Amino acid sequence: MGKLSHLHLDIPKSQNKRIIVIGGGFAGIQFIKSLKNAPYQIVLLDRHNYHTFQPLLYQVATAGLEPDSIAGALRHLFENHNDFYFRMARVTGIDPEKKKIKTLVGELDYDLLVIANGSKTNYFGDQQMYERTFPMKQIPQALDLRSHLLQNFEQTVMSPDQDEQDRLTNFVIVGGGPTGVEVAGALGELKKHVLPKDYPDIDFDIMKLHLVDAGPRLLAGMSEKSGDKALEYLKAFDVDVRLKTRLEAYDGKDVKLTDGTTIPAKTVVWAAGVTGNVIDGLDQKAIERGRILVDSFNKVQGHEDIYALGDIALLKEDSYPNGHPMVAPVAIQQATLLGKNLRRQLSNKEPIAFRYRDKGSMATIGRNKAVVDMPKFHFGGLFAWMVWMFVHLMSIVGFRNRLVILSNWVWNYLTYDRGTRLIIRTFIRGKNYKPGDTL
Amino acid sequence: MGKLSHLHLDIPKSQNKRIIVIGGGFAGIQFIKSLKNAPYQIVLLDRHNYHTFQPLLYQVATAGLEPDSIAGALRHLFENHNDFYFRMARVTGIDPEKKKIKTLVGELDYDLLVIANGSKTNYFGDQQMYERTFPMKQIPQALDLRSHLLQNFEQTVMSPDQDEQDRLTNFVIVGGGPTGVEVAGALGELKKHVLPKDYPDIDFDIMKLHLVDAGPRLLAGMSEKSGDKALEYLKAFDVDVRLKTRLEAYDGKDVKLTDGTTIPAKTVVWAAGVTGNVIDGLDQKAIERGRILVDSFNKVQGHEDIYALGDIALLKEDSYPNGHPMVAPVAIQQATLLGKNLRRQLSNKEPIAFRYRDKGSMATIGRNKAVVDMPKFHFGGLFAWMVWMFVHLMSIVGFRNRLVILSNWVWNYLTYDRGTRLIIRTFIRGKNYKPGDTL
Repeated sequence: MGKLSHLHLDIPKSQNKRIIVIGGGFAGIQFIKSLKNAPYQIVLLDRHNYHTFQPLLYQVATAGLEPDSIAGALRHLFENHNDFYFRMARVTGIDPEKKKIKTLVGELDYDLLVIANGSKTNYFGDQQMYERTFPMKQIPQALDLRSHLLQNFEQTVMSPDQDEQDRLTNFVIVGGGPTGVEVAGALGELKKHVLPKDYPDIDFDIMKLHLVDAGPRLLAGMSEKSGDKALEYLKAFDVDVRLKTRLEAYDGKDVKLTDGTTIPAKTVVWAAGVTGNVIDGLDQKAIERGRILVDSFNKVQGHEDIYALGDIALLKEDSYPNGHPMVAPVAIQQATLLGKNLRRQLSNKEPIAFRYRDKGSMATIGRNKAVVDMPKFHFGGLFAWMVWMFVHLMSIVGFRNRLVILSNWVWNYLTYDRGTRLIIRTFIRGKNYKPGDTL
Repeated sequence: MGKLSHLHLDIPKSQNKRIIVIGGGFAGIQFIKSLKNAPYQIVLLDRHNYHTFQPLLYQVATAGLEPDSIAGALRHLFENHNDFYFRMARVTGIDPEKKKIKTLVGELDYDLLVIANGSKTNYFGDQQMYERTFPMKQIPQALDLRSHLLQNFEQTVMSPDQDEQDRLTNFVIVGGGPTGVEVAGALGELKKHVLPKDYPDIDFDIMKLHLVDAGPRLLAGMSEKSGDKALEYLKAFDVDVRLKTRLEAYDGKDVKLTDGTTIPAKTVVWAAGVTGNVIDGLDQKAIERGRILVDSFNKVQGHEDIYALGDIALLKEDSYPNGHPMVAPVAIQQATLLGKNLRRQLSNKEPIAFRYRDKGSMATIGRNKAVVDMPKFHFGGLFAWMVWMFVHLMSIVGFRNRLVILSNWVWNYLTYDRGTRLIIRTFIRGKNYKPGDTL
């Protein structure tokens, strides 16, 4: 968009105290909702103009849902809020002394600051992986993966070379958490039900799915029973699951694993973990392992008037001495409570300390197959899959998104089809497609 | 996707004659459908893996429909056809002597060649316009325009400078044909009903729509009555329509018109016309004004076994001495007839000459507003709008697309909302977002 130096963050002062919220993820939007009509001016900053429903990102990447269905326009979400401002801006720093944040388009004062900018893909400092693998955190990334994987099959039918065909149809997924397991399951579905109809000239035995995890089992954040069940489901899709194994090197052509195996593969999905999006300017003592240390009221340690919520916040509770899992329910519960505490403050009531109520966790591995952990019991199979769908459908923002996703799921289920098998690549205005971009 | 020199077009020979079809637009897909189960091997080549329903492209560009809803995966369309092959490849030349086509991934023999690769945006040789304006022919282009126009408003709220605000909120549309009129109408709707809710801090009187056309009236391809009606509708949206006016120069900042006006504008939509996608290799005598001359059986003049259909074909009939309008119904009728004639040939029947049956044409200018020309009469308003919707809905490929589009329309109509107001920009793997790209 060219030079932006002339832009600035221009928010009129109101009689209310100003809360700046950094990030329109689960924590950010829940926090703002919880303060609807409270006497605060809220300024939300995000580098995107939409909220991403990340739990369904893998379905966009595997052609099951259109990207628009898992996104909610942030301005639209808060259309009926008073004294609310949204600015599409990337925050680059915090100045706690002057109570200001810095962005690429200028600075802004706050009375209260809520840091809720979540997490990003963790490459553990490996530049090779950053450049050559597909992350799964943002909608454009998921679209990129969708186009890439379909393009691989278009190239496979034109490839005279067996090695090259293998390289195009091998998919390596790094990370056996929910994202890795769900991507592997969705690719298994594509292999079994969808792609063979599209590519009758390919023998789909050639398509191989590999899932690699450094730990001793899948879904480390869930129960052992669920991990075992997920492994069983993935094996039914012929997924080659390698535990206690790491990716050692990847040159864009061949994956080298620590168990000595080499897999020729053009596609490596990097779902090995996330790390906090730490912004410059906070006291270094408040940062631990890429997250921001907060007390049990989500106030950042060593700072006044700064809070952190969700993935970025590291809150050590008795039951969670290393912090909470970086998942949506934690973010939502913290955000709700902080909103409530700010309201209590207005009526001079004591704030309530955060305690995470784990309502369970779940992952899906394809048609009729999911695992659910409840605090007291675990289950899998068709019922788990239905619970998974119901919970996700009810959690997504906006009635319209719910309708679109539900109709897609019904359609996909009944037809064994995926409606969005489109290779949509970048168009750069004024530049032609380059030969390599679209064949 | 890197080097492709190792790829090749590998289509097994069958006992059937091979027809190569270039382009999966209206003509290409209709032609293939009309030959279902006929004793021909069909090879479809397209640089995209999907068919684009171009009449609704403007709704993608103006956030009314998701891109996936107006696209149909080409492989999926012909899943049940025998001896059918699709290859995603860009055709670069034809060798009529050797009966071969050339692509970026190698050559392929044909027995019959059907050229149906349609038209592209006509910049009339103006490199400035090509580099600085938004075309409206492809899905990635429509998405680019959608992101751009929303981003303009995000920047407007951060712009301290009145001139810059004007530049961001002025939209100049070049071309008063159906595309230009429909884009102007859709932007008018956004201004009136949708964007003010999103941007309460902008006074939307600042948003100005300008439509420029070199001719004396709008919708030159339709009746004068419809052109007048469209003008009236656009004026109700405060669109500044300038007829007999051309764009003289555009440096990316200021539009200079031939009537002496200068309009500061970051957005110019180029809908001034299309021209054929002529491929190298045909006899120069067969090319006229960017189209391929065909006889009344759509056979290319001076060539054996080569046909051209749709926008690219120039067929001079008594009633159309300068060729037919470059619209979908002509393409579909020609394609149907060519399929029928090839079947007649198999049973030694004489081919039937093409005669265009004009069933009417139409354009929509927003909520409850459209114009319809039937051969004998013309009408506008709510009924025309309903006819427009019905015809477009029934014409689009695929039951699923129909459902998705219908639900979007019902939603948009009832809520005065647009579900897809998302700025989704390119993500380039391994590269960070650059500051300028996403603010």
